[in-house]
Amino acid sequence: MKTIDVCLSPDLMHLYDVSDRTVVVVDILRATSCMVTAFAHGVQSITPFADLEACRAMKSKGYITSGERNGEKVPGFDQGNSPFEYMTGAIRGKKIAFTTTNGTQAIEKAKGAKRIIIGSFLNLSSVVKYLLFGDNSVLIVCAGWKGKVNLEDTLFAGAVVEKLKNHIETDCDAPLAAQHLYNVAKDDMVKFLNASSHVKRLNRLNIHKDIEYCLSLDQYQVVPRLENGVLLA
Amino acid sequence: MKTIDVCLSPDLMHLYDVSDRTVVVVDILRATSCMVTAFAHGVQSITPFADLEACRAMKSKGYITSGERNGEKVPGFDQGNSPFEYMTGAIRGKKIAFTTTNGTQAIEKAKGAKRIIIGSFLNLSSVVKYLLFGDNSVLIVCAGWKGKVNLEDTLFAGAVVEKLKNHIETDCDAPLAAQHLYNVAKDDMVKFLNASSHVKRLNRLNIHKDIEYCLSLDQYQVVPRLENGVLLA
Repeated sequence: MKTIDVCLSPDLMHLYDVSDRTVVVVDILRATSCMVTAFAHGVQSITPFADLEACRAMKSKGYITSGERNGEKVPGFDQGNSPFEYMTGAIRGKKIAFTTTNGTQAIEKAKGAKRIIIGSFLNLSSVVKYLLFGDNSVLIVCAGWKGKVNLEDTLFAGAVVEKLKNHIETDCDAPLAAQHLYNVAKDDMVKFLNASSHVKRLNRLNIHKDIEYCLSLDQYQVVPRLENGVLLA
Repeated sequence: MKTIDVCLSPDLMHLYDVSDRTVVVVDILRATSCMVTAFAHGVQSITPFADLEACRAMKSKGYITSGERNGEKVPGFDQGNSPFEYMTGAIRGKKIAFTTTNGTQAIEKAKGAKRIIIGSFLNLSSVVKYLLFGDNSVLIVCAGWKGKVNLEDTLFAGAVVEKLKNHIETDCDAPLAAQHLYNVAKDDMVKFLNASSHVKRLNRLNIHKDIEYCLSLDQYQVVPRLENGVLLA
């Protein structure tokens, strides 16, 4: 039987053998929410970069440079890390080079997995369906905050575990912990997360509408997947 | 104001500066529960070892050798890792050399902290009181299982956060996650943990009464602390 496990921090990735697993990378606030939004609005590809300068260099190759460090847009980049920046027709058919504090680092650490896909609440049901009908066991990798565990990514992991509970067995305790937390939070995730450290950090940046949007379910059906280092729809 | 944080796995210890913190090491099933029980029954000291052979070598120096690997007593050692083995008058005034799969490894990684103490549900209120009246900020280090996050240690962390919530501010999301989980579980922790991976592992070893005992609150008032590499009452 397929199993599902949850890696609560990219700094725990060494504990997991992903060579035969589908890895779902999640960075709810806001990298993977942006990526899903971008593909839903017709972007051709997103190339994730862990390194900021490598990302910046893609500008000269015709890429839109996007991303943030510590929650704020990188000076000189074309776009930041608000999903609302990715709802424009201007990105249709374009290639994006993307780097963020946590999300693109987590993608980097997931390399070596049999399959890597991008998850967010915005495409939750489509991700669940993809995992349900796929052949592989699953590892959800929470991007966290600089290695530390965060609540919003854990809640996403818990939502997936909860929705697959009758079909895929859990491997260990992290999926159970995530599932319990999701069940506490699910009726009002915005309220539940108001005390969380990253939401406090983002509220200081005055992007409360980003948070509400990133916690809204099933806006899109796209499931971005990594192919040869490039995310495609 | 003092703060409290929770390190959900020893493999995340590099993220925390503990030089000015009191670290509470917890390995509910069963290392720190055994340690607390042993001190409550008059043991003179417990020297924790990460390395099994270094621990074994203490036998010739008059120490009682104790511990487990993968949940089972080490062949040739005097005692295993059941708290019931530490309730005997035979350990009164004796020195123990102790090594376990997770707990003593976590103590090793906590070295460098301003203060290291041992926590378990058996001495929960005394630990809370110690932290409340101490001057230092707090980090609870969950021993986990070979680097992976487990539920029982996380519940202990959550219990401490819950009891200190009006007095010590949380640093990040891990304490909040632990606190939520404790509040879900607290009315029947045995039932809550029945699905957990380590409880399943231990149930296979037929030590259900150990589990019930390790989840019982406030049996003892002792708070073991590490002094120059040796645990004292």
